Amino acid sequence: MIQQLTIIGVGLIGGSLARALKQANYCREVVGCSRNEAHLQKALELGVIDRFSTDIGEAVKDADMVLVAVPLGAMESCFAAMAGHLSPDTVITDVGSSKASVIKAAKAAFGDELPPGFVPGHPIAGTEQSGVEASFSELFRNRRVILTPLASTSAEALSKVEAMWHETGAMVDEMAVEHHDEVLAATSHLPHLLAYGLVDTLVSMDKSEEIFRFAAGGFRDFTRIASSDPIVWRDICIANQPALLAMMERFQSDLEKLTELVRTGDADALGEIFQRAKSARSRFIDQLEK
Amino acid sequence: MIQQLTIIGVGLIGGSLARALKQANYCREVVGCSRNEAHLQKALELGVIDRFSTDIGEAVKDADMVLVAVPLGAMESCFAAMAGHLSPDTVITDVGSSKASVIKAAKAAFGDELPPGFVPGHPIAGTEQSGVEASFSELFRNRRVILTPLASTSAEALSKVEAMWHETGAMVDEMAVEHHDEVLAATSHLPHLLAYGLVDTLVSMDKSEEIFRFAAGGFRDFTRIASSDPIVWRDICIANQPALLAMMERFQSDLEKLTELVRTGDADALGEIFQRAKSARSRFIDQLEK
Repeated sequence: MIQQLTIIGVGLIGGSLARALKQANYCREVVGCSRNEAHLQKALELGVIDRFSTDIGEAVKDADMVLVAVPLGAMESCFAAMAGHLSPDTVITDVGSSKASVIKAAKAAFGDELPPGFVPGHPIAGTEQSGVEASFSELFRNRRVILTPLASTSAEALSKVEAMWHETGAMVDEMAVEHHDEVLAATSHLPHLLAYGLVDTLVSMDKSEEIFRFAAGGFRDFTRIASSDPIVWRDICIANQPALLAMMERFQSDLEKLTELVRTGDADALGEIFQRAKSARSRFIDQLEK
Repeated sequence: MIQQLTIIGVGLIGGSLARALKQANYCREVVGCSRNEAHLQKALELGVIDRFSTDIGEAVKDADMVLVAVPLGAMESCFAAMAGHLSPDTVITDVGSSKASVIKAAKAAFGDELPPGFVPGHPIAGTEQSGVEASFSELFRNRRVILTPLASTSAEALSKVEAMWHETGAMVDEMAVEHHDEVLAATSHLPHLLAYGLVDTLVSMDKSEEIFRFAAGGFRDFTRIASSDPIVWRDICIANQPALLAMMERFQSDLEKLTELVRTGDADALGEIFQRAKSARSRFIDQLEK
């Protein structure tokens, strides 16, 4: 059981973890921290946190678990603000969608010798909503959480973070940092970029209002992720640049091939690709629903 | 009221229209037609059609309304098979997602002088499901149906098709053929190609099963349309080639620019694009929900 969980950045993810752990009676006290006092006040009113501070050093003092749930661009300054205020036993984990960049930010703040309590993590869960108002205790149930422990990570810290996520109903996996970043570039970062990009392409067309008027349910689903928080996703694209660029180049090359098939009217080859994609997707959905 | 509605291709769209019109008591008899007798038998058992024939000429005889709801690649042979079997007053409409190609197919079958009863149409509705089992009477409620009447189309035929779609709860718009094809390339055909393409890119990667395992809800929504019927969508991409190619080139050029912003780490410009897309999407969703 956690005595004091300090959550830095009490939004959809941080707020949902607090709700889940409170519901499981796994946490004695949740302390919220943010630069925005109104957000913290809201979280307090919603019962998501028990008290708050806008000062990171103060908020992490006495915490046995610290969760950093801020946009990737704010990671380094958060780590820097908590350095020197942590006890040797404090476990520090995060929810960043790109792990190499978080580790780099931690090294910039803590020095190359990272605290043994630092366990980089990433829950593969979320909605296109943001903010503590959108948080809910079931967000992580049956979802996967990827931990990317380092050589410096203590076994005890790792098992504490694993135990915490298990309490939310999540499945926990371990993965190498680079592999995490490649997998997420493929399944999450590239799709977000494509969805934002498509909507923006349509916006810039003549009579775009009319174009949107004739969009149907398929378009709504396809572009749902383009309603995600722009700051969070801007930071992800910058932070996971190497893996994302590799995926973008791969996809653009495949899209060139598809364009060529449309151009030459190669119905058979197009049909084969569509069939292969449909089959793969239904296998993937079967897998998800297991 | 329609005396005899003949539906050629009793799948999701044709079946849903039959169900909606029966529910509205707007149709005395629905005759199904398909090359596949088992499908027709199924439609009969489900009460979607009242009788069927596998012979198009026979099925359209005595019909006052004929709905052609087959994949675009089968349009020409359908029109050819009904030519000579229609009465002068028969209204013929279709549900093809690309209108120029349907008109071309009709001209190849009927000759350049198209029947005055021919009203090209396209209901902007559907799900990623296919087949008569997936049909339901509410599919068109509050959805838009685009009609692209021609100079040859009689006012009477146009108003009969409009009245039929109104009975399903749909809103009916008229549009020029080329404009329809451009709008649909943007909001429907390109997104389908991107979704199929992304899934196929991931399938072709090493350890693709593992990659899919870490995909979350956003990916599921984004790729939902990649579970659509591959034959239908292959035919759409071929049939609407000119408008689709223009959209693909436009999107690829925009994607190049996004790639460059990721490559140069231009967080401000990326954030602006994401914010613009998010705002546009919420305006569009507000519009849809009106």
